[in-house]
This record gives sequence, C-alpha cells and structure tokens, in this order.
Amino acid sequence: MRKVFFDHISTTPLHRDVREAIIPFYEEYYGNPSSHIHEQGQHALRAIDGAREKVAGLIHATPEEVVFTSGATECNNLAIKGVARAMKNRGKHLIVSEVEHFSVLNALIPIINEGYEVTYLKVDRFGLINVEELKREIRDETVLISVMHANSEIGTIMPVEEIGAIARERNVCFHCDATATVGHIPVNVEKIGADLLTVSAHNFYGPKGVGALFIRRGTQIEPLFDGGFQEHGQRAGTENVPGIVGLGKAAEIALVEMEEDARRVRSLENQLRDGLMNRIEHIHFTGHPTNRLPGHVSFWVEFAEGESLLIYLNIHGVMAASGSACSSNLKALDEEDLVASHVLKAIGVPSDICTGSITFSMGKWNTSAEVDYVLEIMPGIVQKLWEMSPSYSDYLKSQVARR
Amino acid sequence: MRKVFFDHISTTPLHRDVREAIIPFYEEYYGNPSSHIHEQGQHALRAIDGAREKVAGLIHATPEEVVFTSGATECNNLAIKGVARAMKNRGKHLIVSEVEHFSVLNALIPIINEGYEVTYLKVDRFGLINVEELKREIRDETVLISVMHANSEIGTIMPVEEIGAIARERNVCFHCDATATVGHIPVNVEKIGADLLTVSAHNFYGPKGVGALFIRRGTQIEPLFDGGFQEHGQRAGTENVPGIVGLGKAAEIALVEMEEDARRVRSLENQLRDGLMNRIEHIHFTGHPTNRLPGHVSFWVEFAEGESLLIYLNIHGVMAASGSACSSNLKALDEEDLVASHVLKAIGVPSDICTGSITFSMGKWNTSAEVDYVLEIMPGIVQKLWEMSPSYSDYLKSQVARR
Repeated sequence: MRKVFFDHISTTPLHRDVREAIIPFYEEYYGNPSSHIHEQGQHALRAIDGAREKVAGLIHATPEEVVFTSGATECNNLAIKGVARAMKNRGKHLIVSEVEHFSVLNALIPIINEGYEVTYLKVDRFGLINVEELKREIRDETVLISVMHANSEIGTIMPVEEIGAIARERNVCFHCDATATVGHIPVNVEKIGADLLTVSAHNFYGPKGVGALFIRRGTQIEPLFDGGFQEHGQRAGTENVPGIVGLGKAAEIALVEMEEDARRVRSLENQLRDGLMNRIEHIHFTGHPTNRLPGHVSFWVEFAEGESLLIYLNIHGVMAASGSACSSNLKALDEEDLVASHVLKAIGVPSDICTGSITFSMGKWNTSAEVDYVLEIMPGIVQKLWEMSPSYSDYLKSQVARR
Repeated sequence: MRKVFFDHISTTPLHRDVREAIIPFYEEYYGNPSSHIHEQGQHALRAIDGAREKVAGLIHATPEEVVFTSGATECNNLAIKGVARAMKNRGKHLIVSEVEHFSVLNALIPIINEGYEVTYLKVDRFGLINVEELKREIRDETVLISVMHANSEIGTIMPVEEIGAIARERNVCFHCDATATVGHIPVNVEKIGADLLTVSAHNFYGPKGVGALFIRRGTQIEPLFDGGFQEHGQRAGTENVPGIVGLGKAAEIALVEMEEDARRVRSLENQLRDGLMNRIEHIHFTGHPTNRLPGHVSFWVEFAEGESLLIYLNIHGVMAASGSACSSNLKALDEEDLVASHVLKAIGVPSDICTGSITFSMGKWNTSAEVDYVLEIMPGIVQKLWEMSPSYSDYLKSQVARR
C-alpha cells in the first residue's frame, strides 16, 4: 500500500545527509567535549563548536548566543521559567498568546504558583494576536512576552517583527517559539527582535532529542539544569554530541534548500487546498488564508469527527495530525477536550458542529501524485463518516423538510 | 601511533549493537510517539515502550517507574529540585554527601536560595560516608537524601543499601546517582531501597543525550519540563526516540555482558595498579582499595602535576581523566581549583604536595597489551615532569643533605 506522510508538523524524517553527519559520532568519535585534554574530547568539542556556528548562521545570531538543549520543550521551559525567575526583582508579569504550545502554557503554571501574573492575548479568527492589545497590556512589571512564530495546528504566522519592535521599545524581553518555522521560512533574530528564540531539530529534518535556545547576550536567565560548566553555564550536562552535530547539519542544509523547498510545498499546499475545496462539502479551512506555513493545510469538516478521519486516513496509508501531536496525548486525559483544542476554541470554531480538525503538513519529499492520492480517497472517507453520523442524518432530514 | 582509551568514566564508545538498533530510527522509523493515531507514531511509541521495559529490567524496576530524560544531569536536577519543591510543605531539609557530582551539588544552590537547608555528609579517606552520621543528621523536616552509588573520580562504591535502609526506616526519600555503576555492576532499586535513581546511557556504551530517572511509584515530584503529557506527565517534550532505543539496547546488552566485562576489567585494573605501584615512586592511590568500580585506577604522584601528566599521556596516544570530565571545565574558571578537586579535598589529599590526580578507567574493549603500553610509558613521563619540577629538585637536595 502507498504510504503518504503528511504529518511534518509533528516531526520530520531525518535528512540522509544529517544521518551521514551523525554516524561517525556513533563510531570513531565518541569523546566527551569536557574531556578536551585528550584527542577524543577535543574532536567532540570542535564538532559542537562547528554545529553552533551553523545554527547561529541559520538564525543570524552569534555562536555565543546559541545554547544547545534537548529540544523545544526544554527551550520553552528554560525561556519562560528562566527569565521569569531571574527577573523577579524587576517584576512578575508575563504576556503570552492564548494559542501558544503547551510547553509555553504549562510552563507558566509553576510560575503562576510562584506569584507571577500572566496576561493571555486573545487571537482573531485567523489566529493572529492584536498588537494594539499587546501594547496596552505591557506594564512596568512585565518581564517577558512570549509569542510563537507560527502555530503548528492552524499554520498562522504571527506578526513577530511588530511584536519584537514593541518589546524593544518598552524594554521587555521577547521570547519567540520558532519550532514550526526554523528551517522552513527565514528566521532572523535581529529582524524579529527576539531576545530568546526556540529551535527544534526534529522539526526540520534533524534528529529528535536536540534543540537550541537563542539567548541574546545580556539576557538574564536562571538555568533549569545546574551542574558542570557546559553551554556557558546556561545548560549543564554532557552534550548530546551526535544530536548537536545533526542539528548543525540540518541548519546547514536548510540554509541551502529552504527557499526551494518552501516554493515546492507551497504549490502542493495550493493543489491540496483547492482539491479539498472542490471535492468536500461542509469543509472549513482554519488559520490565516495567506500568511501561513508553507505546505500546511488545516481544516475541519462538519459532521465528520476528526479522530475518525485520521484513523480512516491511516487505514489508507495517509498519516496526518489532529492539531498538534502533543495535544493528542492530552486529549486522552480529558474526554471533554477531545473535540476542540485550545487553538480551535481560541479562533472561535463552534464546538457543537466541529468535532475535531485535521492538519496536513507536507515536506521535502512529498509529491503532487501523493496529493492526488489524498484527494482521491478523502471524499469516500468523509462520506462514510457522514453516513455513520446521526447529526448528519438530522441535517439531511432538515434539508428535505425545507424543500 | 597506538591509541589507548582509558577514560570510560567520562564517556564510553557506543556499542556496535546499540548503533545498529538506533539506525532504523534514523531511516524508516521517524514517527513522533505522540502521533500514535498513525502508523509512524505507533511504531515510535512501541519502540520507547520496549526500551522502557529493558531499562526497568536492568535496574529491577517496573516500566511505569522509568522516566526518560536527556541524561544524568537532568535526572539529578529533576530528582533534587523536583522532590524538594514537591515536598516543601513537609519540610525543607536535604542531606547529600560532599563528594556528589556537580549536577547534584549545584542543583542545590537554587534550592538553598528558595529557603531549604542542606547537610553535607563528610567522607573518610576512602571516600565513604559514615552511616551513623547520616542517621544523626536526619530530622523531621528532612525530605531527601542524595548519595551517589559510586564516585567517578576515585571509584569508591558507597554503602547504598545501608543508606536506603536508613532512609526507608525514617521515611525519607532516597535518591541515588548511579551514573557510574548502571551497566557495570548490579544495580537493583529494591535492594538499594532507592526512591529515585539516575541512569546515564553514554556511561555504559549507549548514546549521549539520553538517560532515565527511576521514580518509585508514589514519589512526589515536580517536573522540570511542563508541556505535553509525555512520560506520564513527569517529563514533557517529544521523546528522543533513537536515543531511547539506544539506551534500551545498551541495557539489554549490559544484562548479558556486564558480569564478564567486570571480571575482565577487574583483572586489567589489578595489572595496572600493581604495575604502577612497582614502577612509580611517590604514587598515592585514591579511593577505596577493594570496594571500587571495576576497571578504575585513580592516583596522584608527588611533584607531578596532574594536567601535565594527562597532556603527556595524550601525546603518547593515551586518554585519561583528571577527576571527573565535568570538573575539568570548572577548573578552567578558577585557577585555585586547578590543583585539587572537591573530591580530593574531601578525602584529605594534601593540596600542597598533590597537584592533580589521574583517573584511568578501563572498559569493554581494553586489553592487557594496552595496560602494558601504559605501564611502559608512565615512568618516563613522570620522570620528565619531575625534572621540570622545582619542588622535586628541592626534595632531591633534602634527600642528599639527609645522607
């Protein structure tokens, strides 16, 4: 059976060149960078320094401002908790958008318990915050603004440059979770005006278990991990050398291939969206119509339960997501949340007629033929779900009655 | 030139079978375990569940008690900060030994700043704590005891089973940092009576960037990372699937090969220690003479600076450590600490005549011929350092004068 991976927003396959870059660090080079008194340690140290330069190059930072971590969740926790705690004498107020990832929203919970206050910025129906509202919400005690670059569930790209300019003008730290964008669209910490920016390797063809947090020079931050003096004392622990080398290689590749990739997946995105629009009745696309992640198509279909759609798609070999991969775990905990994610609620999707959304996210190796295949199977799957849906049959009856 | 890696305490080469287990997760299996609604996600989820069973098997825990992390430093920080913060209503007192790793000692600093009190247990000249002193130091407000299983710098194995029994009797949580022992000697969380136990993959032929914290069912702990519901909510973040698979494989291999490995490196250890004792004057071995890590030989030589010894050894292709790899980074920060580490100070090594120690740590693939080679080059290196040392020439003059 044909396998179609349209779930690049959850994770990406590893680039072959990244794998080739990693393998020597699983074979002849196994040193601990802290053991730099001997040859193996020196080689490891040079390798992570090289990777640091590549990551810095991709986001227009200096290597000293790049701190390697275990991934986006650690970056977001370090940024939120680290800055809040380090700046507690200046103030205890933070501002975030209500559509941030759980690793931002949930990192705020212990901070709130420690006596901080958080303002959650509302978003419009496209998922955009209102920058005027942001301006109004900044107080003297505000120490951090955290707004994502793009939302993985609905694809919307936030006005981060405007946010950065406001933060800078008001002298407030700005953290930008760029998990969904780094390696896919240009991310420039200077243009964005970010003081902290989250990078996740496995979201752009790098390995899982590694990320990087850009921390602008001079930013006060309390580490999450204390211990040895790795990463300038900002993140203790023996470095994940193969992972870091892989992240560096992914950054190097992205710099070369990103633009062409974006063009290609943008065209697949249009093909898929147009096709769905023409073939599926009662479909509602989510997120911003144009200012969105390339290759990202998100939508919900009336009377068709999202999870069921995904299950039928998987039976046909098509892999996709319902919102973010992380929320699918959370959903299992709370049946009430099974229907609409916090993002769908925030953009005002009606929870009575929307029973779950779908995110198709395409990547480097997807083809137009794969889009055709998905377009071919979708109408049948939707029809089957409709036939199983009592509310769809009620709807049909009401339509007949109306005639 | 011959290359001899005698620095297994800092990190180990990856086992070939671990690499072979990892590679498919860099090729065909790239799913995010949270995306378990589709095939790729399901495969990833099964893989980490399988690894969890293997790690649990190695330390005699149940799989539900194994939480995957990014390594030992995260484990130690999570154990110390997580338990202290979660139990703050019960009490704010912790007990640790003064020879713990920096990721334990430094994790205490923010905790102390939050109003906790810490008792540091002294060690004897072999590096052992006094269990009677431990008993005396436990208070009603004591919430955590953290004592390592074995010290990486001097090789001494602590009386962890006695510590665990005392902790249990007094109803205090016991965290054991078993970074240096898991995969090398039997580690049984039941026998040790540990409530938390740190496992590091790269210290027993697994990959860097991954570890596991055993958290006994019912232990109260506050996460370091908030976000998605991975690892039963105790550690958010997309799992490092290849790393976790590698850790699982390393655990599986250790279960089979550990006993025979220990026997082999114990014999190399004896060969090396006896050889050094016979060939090098003014040598002082550190740590416990018998109750120590297999394959671990640590010592210092009067009038011979430790760092210089390591540099000359490296010129001859021999890689070794001065204390722990992590402290070598710290040393660079503080010239005063260049001479004696906190461990050497704790065991009472005189800082006026000891100028740095050496740790030779042998592993799975070292040979008796390599030991012979090290024994062959060591006297010449020591002699050269002595010739460069003013204090050695003073010593020689005093010897002449005495005749």
